[in-house]
This record gives sequence, structure tokens and C-alpha cells, in this order.
Amino acid sequence: MRLSRLAESLGIEFEGEDREITGIGTLKGAKCDELTFLDNPKYIKELADTKAAAVLVAPRYADAVPEGSIALVDDEPYLKLAMASEIFAPVPMKREGKEPLIGEGSNVAEGVAFGKDVVIGEGVTIMPGCYIGDDVKIGDNTLIYPNVTIYHGCIVGKSCIIHAGTVIGSDGYGFAHTKEGRHVKLYQLGNVVVEDSVEIGANCAIDRGTLDSTLIKEGTKIDNLVHIAHNCEIGEHSLITGQVGLSGSTKLGRNVVMGGQSGTAGHLEIGAFATIAARGGVTKSIEGGRVYAGFPLMEHKRWLKLNALLSRLLEKKK
Amino acid sequence: MRLSRLAESLGIEFEGEDREITGIGTLKGAKCDELTFLDNPKYIKELADTKAAAVLVAPRYADAVPEGSIALVDDEPYLKLAMASEIFAPVPMKREGKEPLIGEGSNVAEGVAFGKDVVIGEGVTIMPGCYIGDDVKIGDNTLIYPNVTIYHGCIVGKSCIIHAGTVIGSDGYGFAHTKEGRHVKLYQLGNVVVEDSVEIGANCAIDRGTLDSTLIKEGTKIDNLVHIAHNCEIGEHSLITGQVGLSGSTKLGRNVVMGGQSGTAGHLEIGAFATIAARGGVTKSIEGGRVYAGFPLMEHKRWLKLNALLSRLLEKKK
Amino acid sequence: MRLSRLAESLGIEFEGEDREITGIGTLKGAKCDELTFLDNPKYIKELADTKAAAVLVAPRYADAVPEGSIALVDDEPYLKLAMASEIFAPVPMKREGKEPLIGEGSNVAEGVAFGKDVVIGEGVTIMPGCYIGDDVKIGDNTLIYPNVTIYHGCIVGKSCIIHAGTVIGSDGYGFAHTKEGRHVKLYQLGNVVVEDSVEIGANCAIDRGTLDSTLIKEGTKIDNLVHIAHNCEIGEHSLITGQVGLSGSTKLGRNVVMGGQSGTAGHLEIGAFATIAARGGVTKSIEGGRVYAGFPLMEHKRWLKLNALLSRLLEKKK
Repeated sequence: MRLSRLAESLGIEFEGEDREITGIGTLKGAKCDELTFLDNPKYIKELADTKAAAVLVAPRYADAVPEGSIALVDDEPYLKLAMASEIFAPVPMKREGKEPLIGEGSNVAEGVAFGKDVVIGEGVTIMPGCYIGDDVKIGDNTLIYPNVTIYHGCIVGKSCIIHAGTVIGSDGYGFAHTKEGRHVKLYQLGNVVVEDSVEIGANCAIDRGTLDSTLIKEGTKIDNLVHIAHNCEIGEHSLITGQVGLSGSTKLGRNVVMGGQSGTAGHLEIGAFATIAARGGVTKSIEGGRVYAGFPLMEHKRWLKLNALLSRLLEKKK
Repeated sequence: MRLSRLAESLGIEFEGEDREITGIGTLKGAKCDELTFLDNPKYIKELADTKAAAVLVAPRYADAVPEGSIALVDDEPYLKLAMASEIFAPVPMKREGKEPLIGEGSNVAEGVAFGKDVVIGEGVTIMPGCYIGDDVKIGDNTLIYPNVTIYHGCIVGKSCIIHAGTVIGSDGYGFAHTKEGRHVKLYQLGNVVVEDSVEIGANCAIDRGTLDSTLIKEGTKIDNLVHIAHNCEIGEHSLITGQVGLSGSTKLGRNVVMGGQSGTAGHLEIGAFATIAARGGVTKSIEGGRVYAGFPLMEHKRWLKLNALLSRLLEKKK
Repeated sequence: MRLSRLAESLGIEFEGEDREITGIGTLKGAKCDELTFLDNPKYIKELADTKAAAVLVAPRYADAVPEGSIALVDDEPYLKLAMASEIFAPVPMKREGKEPLIGEGSNVAEGVAFGKDVVIGEGVTIMPGCYIGDDVKIGDNTLIYPNVTIYHGCIVGKSCIIHAGTVIGSDGYGFAHTKEGRHVKLYQLGNVVVEDSVEIGANCAIDRGTLDSTLIKEGTKIDNLVHIAHNCEIGEHSLITGQVGLSGSTKLGRNVVMGGQSGTAGHLEIGAFATIAARGGVTKSIEGGRVYAGFPLMEHKRWLKLNALLSRLLEKKK
């Protein structure tokens, strides 16, 4: 879409040469024919280096848009981004494209539904009721149990196991909010990348990234009913047990252990080899190599002391 | 079914003229050819105004049944209601009825299964593996991702998005308990109504109302793995994030925000524009416009103070 | 498989007569042509009575292996068990076997997918999109809503109701860990047994036992989005409400009530007629007949006192 038409549809005037816009990217990741945005001022440093064709930006940051990029100035750049995202969202089911390419020795059950341009490796098993969306790639020897849904554009590695009912690539929970309290969908244009030897339990939900990928690294094992929000990154060989919930953009190092029903706030990092006990609620970034518990989170030893203290206080009051 | 036969099947004797009973309703909602019941004495005021043909009622409230209604007196009216509910439950799949009526420009994938008498609007997309039950109505421009199940009689509005694996209209968790500790199913005869512009994430479960509707109002956005029990009512433009659980008959005002893994007890109200922080457990009705946290729930400020206090106490003990 | 070949594939030398090994069992349950293992020393008493053909065992327990069994001595017997488990795991979909045997008066929707050697009772309803795996048995008058997955070898009793999207028999979360921090799958060779008159809500996940059965006893009612891990045993007429999570090998007596979002650690017992309030986290075995709450768990009365105490402390500090 021409930038002039895009800007018009968003109700924004701009100065500069018109050009073709092909998508949306982050400040860091946007290509020279993509739109980007600055919403959170903590990313202003990244603005200077963006290669994007145009930047949605509030008036006070308009001057910081680098030469070569065109500033699209608006009081609500995030809302305008949401409006723009709809334009670049693909249709839910492509009408044209190739039939799935299925590798040797693969066993695809009758009644599996495929989108277009799917590539399935060798020795893959896909059981009944699965949906494998447009442009999905699945690596060799992966086993997908019944009624799994993999949304368009997601990538699953080799020797993975995905249990029944799990959903990979659903939209992240992203909305811009109007002054009237309505929520405008930020179409989720990224995908999910599951590396090799990952196992995912039953009825999990793993959301696609907003603009980039949600990433599950090699060898990680995920239990049932786990919720992984958009843009999370889970390090190698991590253990994510039943009913864990990770909020958006959480980053786990390698070999992190999350106990049952534990959870995290968003935009934080958990260091490698950290263990979060069951029900632990991670509220800020934490160092690796330690054991944590409680909500708000603390070191596990401290949590034990806290419980002992409360117990003593209760006895005293009797 | 004739009232005489119904009463006989429940083992109850009654006085009065026989009549045809066509269903079950609440004290308030029952029509003049329906059965109703009084179990919780707090609803006794509604008994006086009921239009129901007959009322299941304990001996001590028998006299309060208004003229025009017939008292069906039993020591265990709720248990008898459960027994009666089975009689009025529809078959899981109607054998007769019309093929689905699908509006112009809609794109229904091969392999979508329909019940009878379904009405689909214009510009609707329904992806593979979905089941759309008997008498379901879906509004224009709604998008339903793969492997979604919509039970009979549910209504989904216009411009909604429902992500993969979500279930709408499953039975609420309603049982009457016998003296021997067995649980007799209260067949769930209501439905789910999802208004316009609602988005529901992946692998959610939204139960149908017992006798009325579970209601999700316009513009509300629901994240993944959310559990919404029977008879809940969620106000306009609310935000229900990942793994939230709402117990039965919870009522949320408009623009309520429920943080990740938060939950509510049943039969309570949350005022408009209230925010429940992550993991907050709502145990009684709360005013709108404030921020709450913790379990049991308190104002968020107080929760912060409580955590600071516990921290100080721990330091002192060292 | 011959024991000699099995041992060779695990890199273990052994003394004694070669024999055919047909599967893996627990110390107690293994038959005389099966492999077993000792990992947790608390089971050493059971070692003396095992009938297994061979026992994977650490060097320090090698002498305790009874006559008639062959010791397979290794520093990492659990890791070797995991490696062996892959050998005995069945293929995900049998290629040969009988078409499903479906009893009189059953109503199986078009598009239901069956494995081989399935047996369906009389008066059963199975709705669209379900997958019923190899060797599954389903009892009379059971109703299975759409998009349910039942893995191979599982057994569902009579008059059960299973709501949409639920998964029965997915793999338990079992891994042996290498010194390098990788996780080797312990293939889950047991099954799930659901007894009569059980109702299971929408989008639940019930894992198969590792070597034995996960067992849901008669009359138990399970709400939505519940996670039940491998080898759990749930007593008769229990009530398991929304979003509950049970860790592996948890045993509940009859008529246990688990409130919403409550959970348990693994390998513990909850006595009959115990009630766990919403959000309760059971961390060790508890007596029946009482009401518990909190995390860590305590008696409900004590939890109320604790909250009152904290409230007073907060007031004082003002």
C-alpha cells in the first residue's frame, strides 16, 4: 500500500516522498519498506537507528525521527498502529497456493485440514482433526496428536511432540484503547517458532508474536493447559509445568523450571537455571541459578521463613 | 408433558388442575406453562410474583406459593428440580431440522460440522474442525478459528473473533446432592449470548446458563484458557486476561479489567471500571472504579502495604 | 525384545539367562516377562517381592534384587528406564486391527475418527470432531461432545458425559534428566480409566498413567479446564471445580471437594470428605472430613484467623 493512502486511512498528514509500505516492524526490526512506531519512550534510543520507511510517533518525539524515515505524527500513535495493523493482516485462509508438501514416511491421518504452502518433513505423524495453517513448516519426526491447531506461518522443529487440543499461533492479547474505553485490535503479525525436541502438553495456548516471533527453544518440555503470551522467549531445556501462565514478552533463560500454576508478569527476564516453585508469581526480572517462591516472588528460603513467622504469630495470638 | 405425569415421575403429589408444562424457568422468568422452584430462601420475595404453572418448594414455604401457581411440595426441591431438568433437556443432536442458512460472502471450510437450524450471517469465516450446534446464530463478519465448539442454541454477535479450541455453551457445573453423597445433574437449559465485537482467545470454556443466558457484552476481549461459569454476565468493553476463572452468576460491570490468573467466587458483582490485579481473588461484591489485589481481595494500596509490613517483620526476626 | 538386546541398547552388561521382555511394570505390578526399576529408595521393600524379569538398579542396591530377577546395574537407572520406555511405546496409530464395534442405538456423528479395535457400548452419542484412539472402550449411554480426544487404550464407563475439547489419556509429564540438563522422555505406557456416571467439563486434560492407570472413580464430577496429572486416583463422587490442578500420583478419597483454582503437589493423599477451599494449595497428605484453605494449606478456620491477624497488624501500623 502506498504510504499516502495508508496515512489518509489513518487520518494523518505527512511531509515527504510517497513510497510503498509492505508491512509493519519494530523500531529495530523494520525494513526500509515497513512502517514502525514509537509508543513507550524507553525505546527512543532505538528510534535513531530505525530503517523504517515511516514512524508513527507523538508530536513531542517527531523531531527524533531520523532522516530517511517519514514521521507520521499523531496524538495516539499506538491506536493508529492498531488501525494500520488490520490493513497488513493476512486473510485467515489463503485461497491460492500450493497443496502441502509432505515428506517421505510421514503419516497424515484422513481428515487433517491443511492451509496452503505447508511443508511437512519426513517421518512426521499428524493425527485426525488437526489444522495446519497456511505456510506452516513442520520438521522431521514430529508427532502431532489429534485436534491440534497450528495457525498460519508458525514453524515447528524436528522430533517435537504436541499433544491433543493444543493451539499454536493464536493471536496475542494486544489492543489499543480509545478514550471512550473501547479496545482496538492490534492484529498480530508475527508467528511462533518451536525448536527441535520440544514437547507440549494437551490444551495449551501459545500465542504468536505481535510483530516478531514467540520462541520456544530446543528441548523445552511444556505440560498441560499452559498459557504462553505473545513475544515470550523460553530458553533451551526449560520445564514449564501444568497451568503455568507467562505474560507477554517474558524471557526465560535455559533450564528454567516453572512449578505448577506459577506465572509471570510481562516484559521481564528469568535467568538461566532459576526454579520458580508452584504458584510462584514472578513480578520482576530475577537472577538465574536460584529457587524462588511466593507472590510477590521472593527467594524460596525467605518464603519458608515468612510462613514460619506467620505460624508463630498465629500461635501467640491464641 | 402433563403436570400430573411430571409430578408422578418426581414422586410428588399435588392438588389443583392438571396442565401442560413445557419447560423450566426461574421464579422471575418462568412463563405460565413452565415449572419453577424455590431453593434459596433469599428469593422468597420473587415467589409472590411468579407466573409459573407450578413451583417446587419445601413444606415451610408451600403457603407462600401464589394463587394461580400449583405448589409441588417436597423436602428436597432442588433435587427434584434436577430430576425434572433431565426431562426438558434437548437431545444432544437434533435429527430433524433445516440445513444451515449461510449468508453471502461467508467462507465456511470443508469439514465444519453443523447441527440443524443454524443461521450464519454475511462475511463470516468458519475454519476447519469447528462444530456449530443446533439453532446457533452467528452474526455478520465474525471469524471462528479451527476446532471451536459452539453448543446448541448459543448466539454469537457481529464482528467477533473466536480463537481455536474454545468451547462456548458447555454445561454449567450444576448438581443437586443426595443424602448419600451422590450428585444429580441439573441439566443446563439456558445458552450463551456473545454480543458484537467480542474477541475470545484460545481454549477458553464458557458455560451456558442454567435456565437463562450467560452473557458476554459488546466489545469485551477475553484472553486464553479463561473459564466463565454459568449465568455470568460480563459488561461492555471488559478485559479478561489469561487463565482467569469466573464462578457462577458473577456479574461484571462495563470496562472491568481482570488480571492474569485472577478469579471470583460466585453470585457477586464487580462494579464498572474496577481493576483486579493478577492473581486477585474476588470473594464478595466490590465497588467499581478502584484497583484491587490479593486473596482475600483488598484494595491494591492495602495489598502493597501488607507486603511491606510482612517484609519488615521478616527483617526484624533475623 | 530379548533382554540381551535391550541391555545392549541401554549400554548395560548383565549376568544371567537371556529371556524375552514384553513390557515395563512397577516393582509391584511387573509380570515375570517385564522390566522394572528402582529409583526412589523408599520403594526398596517392594524390590524384594518383585516378579519382574529384570530390574534397572543403582550399584548400591544391586544385591537387593531378588533371585529370579536379573539386575541391570547402572548409575542412572531412571534415565535408562526412560530410554527403555521408548522401545515399548506403541505406535501413535495402529495400522492394523478391527474397525470399531458400535453398540445398538448409538449415534456416532459423521467425521468422528476412530483408531483400531475400539469398542463402543449401546446408546452412546459421539459428536463431530472427536478422536477415539486404538483399543478405547466406551460404556453404554455415555455422551461425548465435539472435539474430544481419547487416546489409545483408555476406558470410559457407562452414563458419562465428556464436554467439548477435553483430552483424556495424553502423556504424563515424565522425564529423566541427563547431567547436561537435557530431558529424556519417559514414554507413558499406562492409560486412563473413567468409571461410570462421571462428568468431565470442557477443555480438561487428564494424563494417562506412566505404567498403571490414572483413575477417576464413579460419580465424580469435574468442571472446565482441570488438569489431572499421571497416576492420580480420584475417589467416588468427588467434586473437582474449575481450573483445579492435580500433580502426579495424587490420591483423593471419596467425596472430596476441590474449590476453584485449587491445586495439589504430587504423591500425596487427601482423605475422604475433605474440602479444599478455592485457591487452596495442598502440599502434603491431609485427613478427610475437614475444610482446608490457603497456601501452604491449613485448616480453613486457621486461614480465617490468619487473615484477621494480618488485618489487625495492618491497622496498627497506620
